[in-house]
Amino acid sequence: MQSLAGRLERCAINTATLGHQLPIEQMIDAVARAGFGAIAAWRQELQDRRVEVIGRRIRDAGLKVSGLCRSTFIPAPTRALFLANIEDNRHAIDQAAALEAACFVVVGGGLAQGSKDLAGARAQLGEGLALLLEHARSAGVPLALEALHPMYCADRSCLSTLEQALDLCEVLDSHRSGALGVAVDVYHVWWDPKLEAQIERAGQSQRLLAFHVCDWLVPTRDLLLDRGMMGDGVIELHRIRGWMERSGYADAVEVEIFSRDNWWKRPVSETLEVCAERLQTVC
Amino acid sequence: MQSLAGRLERCAINTATLGHQLPIEQMIDAVARAGFGAIAAWRQELQDRRVEVIGRRIRDAGLKVSGLCRSTFIPAPTRALFLANIEDNRHAIDQAAALEAACFVVVGGGLAQGSKDLAGARAQLGEGLALLLEHARSAGVPLALEALHPMYCADRSCLSTLEQALDLCEVLDSHRSGALGVAVDVYHVWWDPKLEAQIERAGQSQRLLAFHVCDWLVPTRDLLLDRGMMGDGVIELHRIRGWMERSGYADAVEVEIFSRDNWWKRPVSETLEVCAERLQTVC
Repeated sequence: MQSLAGRLERCAINTATLGHQLPIEQMIDAVARAGFGAIAAWRQELQDRRVEVIGRRIRDAGLKVSGLCRSTFIPAPTRALFLANIEDNRHAIDQAAALEAACFVVVGGGLAQGSKDLAGARAQLGEGLALLLEHARSAGVPLALEALHPMYCADRSCLSTLEQALDLCEVLDSHRSGALGVAVDVYHVWWDPKLEAQIERAGQSQRLLAFHVCDWLVPTRDLLLDRGMMGDGVIELHRIRGWMERSGYADAVEVEIFSRDNWWKRPVSETLEVCAERLQTVC
Repeated sequence: MQSLAGRLERCAINTATLGHQLPIEQMIDAVARAGFGAIAAWRQELQDRRVEVIGRRIRDAGLKVSGLCRSTFIPAPTRALFLANIEDNRHAIDQAAALEAACFVVVGGGLAQGSKDLAGARAQLGEGLALLLEHARSAGVPLALEALHPMYCADRSCLSTLEQALDLCEVLDSHRSGALGVAVDVYHVWWDPKLEAQIERAGQSQRLLAFHVCDWLVPTRDLLLDRGMMGDGVIELHRIRGWMERSGYADAVEVEIFSRDNWWKRPVSETLEVCAERLQTVC
């Protein structure tokens, strides 16, 4: 497998890595200046912006959009709220299309508020995705289902493994329209004994839409906001990228680090510099 | 499925629930007095004790021993340390036998210190269990492999799902000697999309050796020491117990709660009272 050294154009920065310190325009400039080839944006950064303008600015900076983050959580305690979530996601898919994003990242949501019905949440997620799929197809933006680490099952994602995500893809999109696939984030799946096999399966069905990297720190001090920089933790990043590439993945290697007490406190330029160095050496 | 109301003799208290506040003798008395039918002990409580004496005291109190916690982690950075871990576990199995414990709880260990080699850790675990199995068989104490939540994969257990544990059982003990099975702890496995199917599989191969309950709190503030009392979180305890019992499990329902900032700060009598109430109402 080819090293990423000298190939930062293959690499992307997810704006979450920069701690939401700057407006999107400045992050675009900083990411482009640092030599990366793509950026992944968050919906909240597009509020009060004309999305077409941001899309053009990104392209003018020489960047691609590796993804738009992320879906409104789908499971809800009432039918009306569930349908409102779907509508919200339709709007977000249109934004992703306007940005010419490579995919719309779907984080499914956990249990509906006040509920313990995990099977029910999963059923709602499946139904919600079925409702969104045609819209994604006509918008030309594939949905990338991101299985989240099982520690987020209650409150963020009842989609917990890559296997489960691929099972869902097969149910909803058995003819492989290209509109439904998966985002593989090492933080969420590195522990999975079936990871290699499921990445291979995803490649065979052409579902590999995104690849996110960061690292798992030991100890991990916060369930949500203590992700590590690549190389500072225990994930075999190079090995997992190898599985992705052997399975046909040739798109962006995207850095996504939530790190309230470390990287989010540093200057954006420093974080970008370290990301670039680590991508080229440990990924 | 029969309720646990009026059937505390089916229920066990894992001494970890009591925050290690008291010597084992006092915990035995408190658990018996509160009406439970069994206790699960930790090895550190047996230091400086004659295990046979503790075993007799437990039986004299009218209690069974639902398990002895837990194995020394197996993966190690050198062969000598690996073999020392195995030897340590042999000794612990002898203690479990002296206690007449229903099983010896095996928490496999995470990555070897300083290593990122997850496949290697899993291979060491498999080899270590193979080395221990004959000893367990001759001691008459089955090994209960406990898959731990994937958030412990790095530092506590590279055994992360029930499916993985059962796959290992089949490799190591294909003829079902009775010496190898699994402990199902709801905290570790409640999120698993394959949980019902894997519990059924474990039942069919007579591998269900232990069942631990507590709850998953939302939010969870600490990866290790913020488990909830049954009913205070989001786990469908009654449903999972139903899957266990339909699969043939008829042994203890054991409460195991690590709760540094809540239950461990309360008097033992109060914690036991609430355990009893919740077992009989929400489990």
